[in-house]
Amino acid sequence: MTTPSPTTAATAPGAAFWTELEQALGAQGFARSGADSIPDKYWTDWSGTAPVQPLALVRPRSTDEVSALLRICHAYRVPVVPQGGLTGLAGAAVPVPGCVAVSMERMNVIEDVNARTGLMTVQAGVTLQAVQEAAVVAGRVFGVDLGARGSCQIGGNVSTNAGGNGVLQNGMMREQVLGLEVVLADGTVLPMLRPMLKNNTGYDLKQFFIGAEGTLGVITRVLLRLRPAPQAKATCLVAMPGFDEALAVLARMQSRFGNSVAAFELMWNDFVQTSMQWQKLQPAFAEQHPILALIDVDGKDEASLQDAVEAALGEAMEAGEVVDAVIAQSGEQAKSLWKLREAPAEMTQHMHPPVNFDVSLPQVDIGRFAAACRAAFDARWPGHHSLFFGHVGDGNLHVTTDGKTIGGEDEALEAVLYGLVQQFQGSVSAEHGIGLHKKPYLPFSRTAQELAAMRAIKSALDPLGLMNPGKVFDGAVGDSAVP
Amino acid sequence: MTTPSPTTAATAPGAAFWTELEQALGAQGFARSGADSIPDKYWTDWSGTAPVQPLALVRPRSTDEVSALLRICHAYRVPVVPQGGLTGLAGAAVPVPGCVAVSMERMNVIEDVNARTGLMTVQAGVTLQAVQEAAVVAGRVFGVDLGARGSCQIGGNVSTNAGGNGVLQNGMMREQVLGLEVVLADGTVLPMLRPMLKNNTGYDLKQFFIGAEGTLGVITRVLLRLRPAPQAKATCLVAMPGFDEALAVLARMQSRFGNSVAAFELMWNDFVQTSMQWQKLQPAFAEQHPILALIDVDGKDEASLQDAVEAALGEAMEAGEVVDAVIAQSGEQAKSLWKLREAPAEMTQHMHPPVNFDVSLPQVDIGRFAAACRAAFDARWPGHHSLFFGHVGDGNLHVTTDGKTIGGEDEALEAVLYGLVQQFQGSVSAEHGIGLHKKPYLPFSRTAQELAAMRAIKSALDPLGLMNPGKVFDGAVGDSAVP
Repeated sequence: MTTPSPTTAATAPGAAFWTELEQALGAQGFARSGADSIPDKYWTDWSGTAPVQPLALVRPRSTDEVSALLRICHAYRVPVVPQGGLTGLAGAAVPVPGCVAVSMERMNVIEDVNARTGLMTVQAGVTLQAVQEAAVVAGRVFGVDLGARGSCQIGGNVSTNAGGNGVLQNGMMREQVLGLEVVLADGTVLPMLRPMLKNNTGYDLKQFFIGAEGTLGVITRVLLRLRPAPQAKATCLVAMPGFDEALAVLARMQSRFGNSVAAFELMWNDFVQTSMQWQKLQPAFAEQHPILALIDVDGKDEASLQDAVEAALGEAMEAGEVVDAVIAQSGEQAKSLWKLREAPAEMTQHMHPPVNFDVSLPQVDIGRFAAACRAAFDARWPGHHSLFFGHVGDGNLHVTTDGKTIGGEDEALEAVLYGLVQQFQGSVSAEHGIGLHKKPYLPFSRTAQELAAMRAIKSALDPLGLMNPGKVFDGAVGDSAVP
Repeated sequence: MTTPSPTTAATAPGAAFWTELEQALGAQGFARSGADSIPDKYWTDWSGTAPVQPLALVRPRSTDEVSALLRICHAYRVPVVPQGGLTGLAGAAVPVPGCVAVSMERMNVIEDVNARTGLMTVQAGVTLQAVQEAAVVAGRVFGVDLGARGSCQIGGNVSTNAGGNGVLQNGMMREQVLGLEVVLADGTVLPMLRPMLKNNTGYDLKQFFIGAEGTLGVITRVLLRLRPAPQAKATCLVAMPGFDEALAVLARMQSRFGNSVAAFELMWNDFVQTSMQWQKLQPAFAEQHPILALIDVDGKDEASLQDAVEAALGEAMEAGEVVDAVIAQSGEQAKSLWKLREAPAEMTQHMHPPVNFDVSLPQVDIGRFAAACRAAFDARWPGHHSLFFGHVGDGNLHVTTDGKTIGGEDEALEAVLYGLVQQFQGSVSAEHGIGLHKKPYLPFSRTAQELAAMRAIKSALDPLGLMNPGKVFDGAVGDSAVP
């Protein structure tokens, strides 16, 4: 942690604010900068944003406390920044000067799990991993998984519409959410928790808060849909001559196995070679290949599933789509194949520092986009070290460049890459969100009219602009814009 | 069609409005009440609402025309009512006095189908059936199906977040929509058509228009996700002693076949007996049973799928969940089993008239709700004829009562049934929407705070209240409310 900047509220609230806060939350219900010590872990998140000490930190224990807090902040015009597990990579949970940071970590109760209906109700501060484990106990699985599972919280996952590895099969976080309880900026509680898949009663309000990065309200409780647990799984590593062949293999597997294709992770050769070197892995194939795919398929029975996957890959080889393939013969072997995909965990250690991109593109264009990126990087930074990999089945491509190999010109690199995203009509943020860091590039993926409509929604639900201000788009407190 | 009521605009627009309309759309670009004849098919929809002649009818051929039209209507404060296939059952597409009705029927081009990526771009006026057929040509299937498929339009399906038979497996219409192009009340075009599954760039604006029943804008183009086509299908009809056993069978099938359980349609015995009588069907079972379920399961291979379904049902019988079962041995037999479920098509003919309900409930409560309904109906209308059936896997229950057998007391029947929905914390509209007809009951399923938030969104995107006014919730032109 670097030296934190001091709290610099434009107009600090007076004594009456603190009195009301104490009446509502108790003397121990909040920590105040200056008077108390606010641990610096609440001053920033995993994005590497410069830390900011909040005016106060509140760790509520109930929806009522959140509502009371927001009502008071609204009355005194104090900005509010909701915080989950602080694992975000775009800076959405970093305090703004003069704000009350609302950490949801004490609202961490799994309130209900119903194995038969596959529904789970949790408070927003429950970690993703706890949700996953409770789902397994109920004989189900939870549809979203990502690396930060042990720290990230379900409320943050909803607020950022988290993605990860399961999107191809289960969709984003949005598709796991059946209901939400949200507290609006003025303290109003919206109890949108009815457990029905079909419920066309006016606007589906909960959708507005999914992916809003805390700018429209604080999510306090979540009603989740669990998925049936697969009874068997096959894992294979497949070598292909190029991106178009990879897409053909994906289409072939989906046409054969439908929604049972659970993962289709693409790795370009530079990623593969680097991953093997860092992790000292034995090569799966005698020769190097332009692109490898890690494929998981669910099924009812190990043996027949293996046979079916082998048959499908055999056909793909005859069609010239696949050059070589390995099918895991055990869970142990599957794990070892997946090891190749785990290089990102080593990036911080090996790169100086890594410059990460999380973009998405029309699926058919990903190969051409990756080639265009590499050519542009080569031209400006010969000898740069960049890795291309991604979920691809859902359009998501990750690119990571070693900062040292581009002479620390991170911003120039961003400009080049996001410029190409704009040109290819892609998304500057596939799954990480906009937060603070991607605000300059949001207009690359959204028209001025779309941004105006977003601001209009923001003004409608948070007229004073107090909810997580300056995140996603700029706008001073009280700003409003109607398209 | 009954005698239509005349157009009664509060303040009819002057000559300048018509001049601008002619400049934008051409003299043949619109029909004007009085001057031209507006066919009465545009005066109402399948809901049976009293017909209203619109001030004008426009059938635009392009998004530009929709945009120009809405800009002019906005300038002259003329309300706009979007119309799809007019098959809605809640009255959302019925003209309001003095409005311009915008029929999307000429925007009926399937612009692009990509078999490999499974994406389809269509104009809003394409029928659901045309979408389904184009998906099949591309070796895929479309995830939503409902009875009005030949007439209803995809724009209307999106605006009402249509449900139907495929929801258990594929979700509602919302989950088939990857992108939307929408024209706002002032003519602003929002081009939200980027074809990426992962796209976290600010608010997911398109979600706001799905299920908004045309009150926030006119949907002009839709980017759809297609699903992989199943290679084999098994159909069975299963008899169970009660509702709780039916839920157990559903859970068992889902745990065994995961997302491959494509349909789970429940029919109470009164529905079964009536359906057999109307359609002169042979009974599938020697005895009558309290509840039957029609179950479809997808798979890769007919023979092994049949075996697996048989094994699962065998276990269910041993567990006492299933009393008797028939598995279709051919496509012909599957069709004949499904015939039992098709009684709704005959209701208008046999009931006097049918009073229909489309509600949803927490899944575990559906059995108790149905029993409570029946008891309440029995008490007040002894000898009433009511049928209970539904998709159930997604919480959706349909109830239809013969109007004559309750002495025409439709409103009293609604009050009893929706009162019970409120008590069981269900939804007064599972899939049909609110429109005009269910407005009085919307507060049974939504809190005052939720309704205020909906109105705030409405005011933000349509400050003059011109888009389909009076649908979903009341509100005069220009009304606004902030929660």
